[in-house]
Amino acid sequence: MDVKTVAATYRDYQKKIRAYGHASGVLTYDKVTGAPKGAEAGVSETLEVLNEASYRLETSKELLDAVDFLYAHRDGLDRIMRREIEEYMRGVEYIKSIPEDEYMAFMTLTNEASDVWHRAKNENDYESFKPYLQKIFDTQRKFALYYKHDRDPYDTLLDFYERGLTKKRLDDFFGALKSSIVPLIAKISKARPIEDGFMHGHFPVDAQRRFSDYLMQVMCIDRERCSIDETEHPFTENFGKNDVRITTHYYDNDFTNSMYSVVHEGGHALYELGSGDEYEHTNIAGGASMAMHETISRFYENIIGRSRPFCKLILPKVRELFPQFEAVSDEEFYRACNVSRPSLIRMEADELTYALHIIVRYEIERDMIDGAYTADEIPRVWREKYKEYLGVDVPDDKHGVLQDSHWSGGSVGYFPTYALGSAYGAQILHKMKDDIDVDEAVRSGSTKAINDWLGEHIFRHSAMYDPDELLHMCTGESFDPKYYIDYLTSKYSKLYELS
Amino acid sequence: MDVKTVAATYRDYQKKIRAYGHASGVLTYDKVTGAPKGAEAGVSETLEVLNEASYRLETSKELLDAVDFLYAHRDGLDRIMRREIEEYMRGVEYIKSIPEDEYMAFMTLTNEASDVWHRAKNENDYESFKPYLQKIFDTQRKFALYYKHDRDPYDTLLDFYERGLTKKRLDDFFGALKSSIVPLIAKISKARPIEDGFMHGHFPVDAQRRFSDYLMQVMCIDRERCSIDETEHPFTENFGKNDVRITTHYYDNDFTNSMYSVVHEGGHALYELGSGDEYEHTNIAGGASMAMHETISRFYENIIGRSRPFCKLILPKVRELFPQFEAVSDEEFYRACNVSRPSLIRMEADELTYALHIIVRYEIERDMIDGAYTADEIPRVWREKYKEYLGVDVPDDKHGVLQDSHWSGGSVGYFPTYALGSAYGAQILHKMKDDIDVDEAVRSGSTKAINDWLGEHIFRHSAMYDPDELLHMCTGESFDPKYYIDYLTSKYSKLYELS
Repeated sequence: MDVKTVAATYRDYQKKIRAYGHASGVLTYDKVTGAPKGAEAGVSETLEVLNEASYRLETSKELLDAVDFLYAHRDGLDRIMRREIEEYMRGVEYIKSIPEDEYMAFMTLTNEASDVWHRAKNENDYESFKPYLQKIFDTQRKFALYYKHDRDPYDTLLDFYERGLTKKRLDDFFGALKSSIVPLIAKISKARPIEDGFMHGHFPVDAQRRFSDYLMQVMCIDRERCSIDETEHPFTENFGKNDVRITTHYYDNDFTNSMYSVVHEGGHALYELGSGDEYEHTNIAGGASMAMHETISRFYENIIGRSRPFCKLILPKVRELFPQFEAVSDEEFYRACNVSRPSLIRMEADELTYALHIIVRYEIERDMIDGAYTADEIPRVWREKYKEYLGVDVPDDKHGVLQDSHWSGGSVGYFPTYALGSAYGAQILHKMKDDIDVDEAVRSGSTKAINDWLGEHIFRHSAMYDPDELLHMCTGESFDPKYYIDYLTSKYSKLYELS
Repeated sequence: MDVKTVAATYRDYQKKIRAYGHASGVLTYDKVTGAPKGAEAGVSETLEVLNEASYRLETSKELLDAVDFLYAHRDGLDRIMRREIEEYMRGVEYIKSIPEDEYMAFMTLTNEASDVWHRAKNENDYESFKPYLQKIFDTQRKFALYYKHDRDPYDTLLDFYERGLTKKRLDDFFGALKSSIVPLIAKISKARPIEDGFMHGHFPVDAQRRFSDYLMQVMCIDRERCSIDETEHPFTENFGKNDVRITTHYYDNDFTNSMYSVVHEGGHALYELGSGDEYEHTNIAGGASMAMHETISRFYENIIGRSRPFCKLILPKVRELFPQFEAVSDEEFYRACNVSRPSLIRMEADELTYALHIIVRYEIERDMIDGAYTADEIPRVWREKYKEYLGVDVPDDKHGVLQDSHWSGGSVGYFPTYALGSAYGAQILHKMKDDIDVDEAVRSGSTKAINDWLGEHIFRHSAMYDPDELLHMCTGESFDPKYYIDYLTSKYSKLYELS
């Protein structure tokens, strides 16, 4: 056996596994975009067959032997292949650590849980979802311990989504954030509210579709390589760097909802579109981590998209499409795009209060994995924390613990990456300003200069580096939450004219 | 081995093969509908992997042994399984009769030929396509003889697409048709033309999209089980009876193009949507044959969709969406929807002249398989026949032999099913009128009564019966072209006020 032959075997398997992933991905994407409702059952049956075939490839002895061999000879591999094998090895070790029947049972559990959660959310029926939620937390704790029996299981879960992330680091970050943001929000609640009545009205969906096209143009998103569709909830999907899809949802009484979805998902898209060519068709392609992806999407959505120059840039198009904005000034529009108001729903939260929604979820999943309480108590804990951090009363579970799909799909340890992303973004902005005049770049009519800077420092590196390594390469220092806290404090103190 | 165990093995293979077909189908559908252009290369790579995996399943010894066993024990199978195995056995026997390397070579040939044809059509370059065309005819003749060495090879090819169809039957049908239609068309060319200037103008695509929704509603097409998308050429695809897709193409200077596409593809969709539940997940699901499918789509498009009551029914909606129709009367609209004008392009042909386009193709492929001449002579023969039957001069091959994709994809013997479909439809109409008042049904506001009748007599039987058997069950007699000839003669003599 020589490295070259074994590498070819590995590549051949990867090509097939990628093909199954591609097929499953398109089936799922099609199901939530163009397909008629009746497609659902057939898609599930087909995914079952494809997943089984893919699982058989992923766990085949030939592939695993190849990975073992390459890993043992990693010093002789080129840098991309070496990174690829090292990354792959973690996944293999995780899968190997879990008994096959338990792994399959968990797949079935999360499939069922997703359906149950959908119904439970619609019917505000936490009780029906509760046993699934408990089982998901229990299983994830068990799996984490199978994989790393001597590590805190929640640290293991966090590490899946963000390499090197720990409870300790998050407790520090979120502690600092809470101590400055909670009082800031309390002050804002007593300040003079920003006038945003003109943001409500009737906004025809056809005009909003044209507005999305305009926004993608402003963001310099290549439409030959990125499409936009409509779904219940916006998301970004990609099947390689030349086939990226973003989705949005149009509400005819609020055009900014879709507007900021497009800018947010457009950020994800730019990251994928800018992934290094040399990593295409490897597991290095795409973003460095979930948090780094969220960094980019939130960078475009909030730091750029809610900046004064961006609001000024797009207002003429807003006026053209929605004539009721004729009399709205640049400053009025900017301020209205930045209203902060504590709310119940994470997906509708503004830039300032968003992180507190995440902190609530973080503390609950951390403590659930610790076994501090059971799923019975989550709704109560949820209500208490929302009251304490955001000052709002949660009327029911539909507007509380049932609002997000993540846990039903088995994702535990994922939520913190959302808040981390915002914080990374502020640190990156600080560095970007050393190199380019960010406001001036936007005033020139597009985000091109910003795309280029991020392309050079972030996008092109794909997942070649761990996220903390990449952040350090990009900003010259380790993660420091102060940039984020300073950014929020400064921006919102000015907006609300706090003394 | 007992039948039950072997049947389970067969079903398990079929489930997997169906899943691969489903995945490939959705990838291809997505590629021509929502996907960005950049998706193409990735889709080809994935299809290659899926096709290979599927081919390995289809040709696995375990499956073929199971089919052999079940076929040998077919008397002990239930009616659906028996039909399924008998149908499956034909495909197996065909594949088995061809040496694997020749079969693979033909796949490669048609893949290449499709690309060459695309280019040749765009560049009006028959010479580059000619060697491929010759090879395709030669190979299909050879394969037909491998499969049935003692039968006329063109009869074998016809039988693939329409069980029991022969040259003899088509010569009789097309002979009768030519002798009545060719003189009718000649008479019409001297009659007073129908005024249809008002059919041209500007028709906004958004309004046409709303019109498509309206037409699908008139046809009672369940939108929960059938979607509509936009593609270069309209088609119908389905992934089971609960996931049917139709597509159309909007031209902003002609709304009837998309209108009749939607009604035509809507007919295909109704057939799939109405397939018997008991056949779902078997190879019996769907239509009885290509010709029977075309029967239904053309029935809705022409017999219903171009009828006086249908035109009258939809005109108010046409006026609402396209105000320029305010002053157009029911009779004017009806007549304009039925203009007959000999043309060069099959896809644009009207109800009356359509069959002649098919006859040209039929006579050429029949004679090519006979070896009566070579691909060198096709353009000349094409021009001569168009002149003789339709009275038109073919200016170049782009508007002649290069216009259709069928031969480049290897489909020889397929074209006749198009004409057969129209003729079956007229015979079915004759019988339907015994049971229901077809015009009155349409006047009531939808095609529901027609859908129900066809559902009862055709749709629900799926492919459980051979098409000629089904036609006999439905109409009480064998195929008789007189109904079609009478229908065309009567309708067009009145329209053009021929004496």
